[in-house]
Amino acid sequence: MTRLFHVPLSPFCRKVRLCLAEKKIEVELVEEHYWEQDPDFLRRNPAGKVPVLKFDGLMMAESTAICEYIDETRPDPPLIPREPKARYEMRRLVGWFDDKFHNEVTSKLLYERVNKKVTGEGYPDSRNVKAGARAIKYHLDYMAWLLDHRRWLAGDTMTLADFAAAAHLSSLDYISDVDWDRSATVKDWYAKIKSRPAFRSILADQIPGFRPPPHYADLDF
Amino acid sequence: MTRLFHVPLSPFCRKVRLCLAEKKIEVELVEEHYWEQDPDFLRRNPAGKVPVLKFDGLMMAESTAICEYIDETRPDPPLIPREPKARYEMRRLVGWFDDKFHNEVTSKLLYERVNKKVTGEGYPDSRNVKAGARAIKYHLDYMAWLLDHRRWLAGDTMTLADFAAAAHLSSLDYISDVDWDRSATVKDWYAKIKSRPAFRSILADQIPGFRPPPHYADLDF
Repeated sequence: MTRLFHVPLSPFCRKVRLCLAEKKIEVELVEEHYWEQDPDFLRRNPAGKVPVLKFDGLMMAESTAICEYIDETRPDPPLIPREPKARYEMRRLVGWFDDKFHNEVTSKLLYERVNKKVTGEGYPDSRNVKAGARAIKYHLDYMAWLLDHRRWLAGDTMTLADFAAAAHLSSLDYISDVDWDRSATVKDWYAKIKSRPAFRSILADQIPGFRPPPHYADLDF
Repeated sequence: MTRLFHVPLSPFCRKVRLCLAEKKIEVELVEEHYWEQDPDFLRRNPAGKVPVLKFDGLMMAESTAICEYIDETRPDPPLIPREPKARYEMRRLVGWFDDKFHNEVTSKLLYERVNKKVTGEGYPDSRNVKAGARAIKYHLDYMAWLLDHRRWLAGDTMTLADFAAAAHLSSLDYISDVDWDRSATVKDWYAKIKSRPAFRSILADQIPGFRPPPHYADLDF
């Protein structure tokens, strides 16, 4: 049985969930309190973080390595283009979201507002929250610029780059930190991706102590 | 002409340099003061960081996306295995070094001791330096454990994972922050990789204000 050890709002876990769902691979979700550094969990992944995926006899870590493996062994429908330059552009953008967007936005908003409370680390640092709220504007504008030139973020087909971006934005949307009025282009892109069957499980997430805004699960937001 | 905008001690730039050199692709190295956020540089890479590689008519960013592209278009000699599970393991380990090792060790030692001085950010924070010095022991032990089971880090052939690890360790070795006596297995592995022709340019690096220890460029260290 495929099993994913995860936390619901982690964008890295959400990227893997979207990838599995798009490929119609059934998965059992197990919430993992990775911050407690339970020895059993550390045995599954010495890096001590989620996602961890039990799949094909492997205990897998590192979300992008996992998604590339899933796409290579279950290529239908494809999430990674075939042509090297298109593959490069997709990987560049996955890196953009999982590194730059993560550092400048997700860690400053989601981790301050949610993770600190959940893990008992205390209150949000308002300087970080302000920096994150400022940085997300630039990122939404960059996405709008890309989407003015292409149908999807990395080119004319939907790829893992769209899932990486949507994973971060959906987690932030759960805490109302995305201003969808900033760009109609980005909103249209998110509406398209949000309406995919693969997105359903993510829209059904409920985190105790944090109620999502009504538009979070609304396909016509 | 292939041109790499880089800084000499950046492990991400070094990974790309090793990859290019292993494939015998000649490259012009241009030092980039990315922290000055020069508009010309931001036009080359809106992410505002190095490495940036001018190659095949593209201006490329994100070191792993670059290395995957180089290997896909110049597969000889291969740095990425062909079998999906081996590819996964290689990518997991590239992620291990570029994310976990980078956060726990490189950013705590190299960035504190060198980058802060070079960019004028001030003095090293001794708590970070201590944390980094503690964490590298665990990482060297993990590498020793992997290398007790395999000839190279990700399996029985040399891959990009070895270059990722060697890129971080060589930068730290420049400032004498690697205790090679901790594990004979890791030292042997590093001696093998250090003696490759691809490593020569890295061993010749000289950073003004920081003199490397005599063993840094010594193949018989």
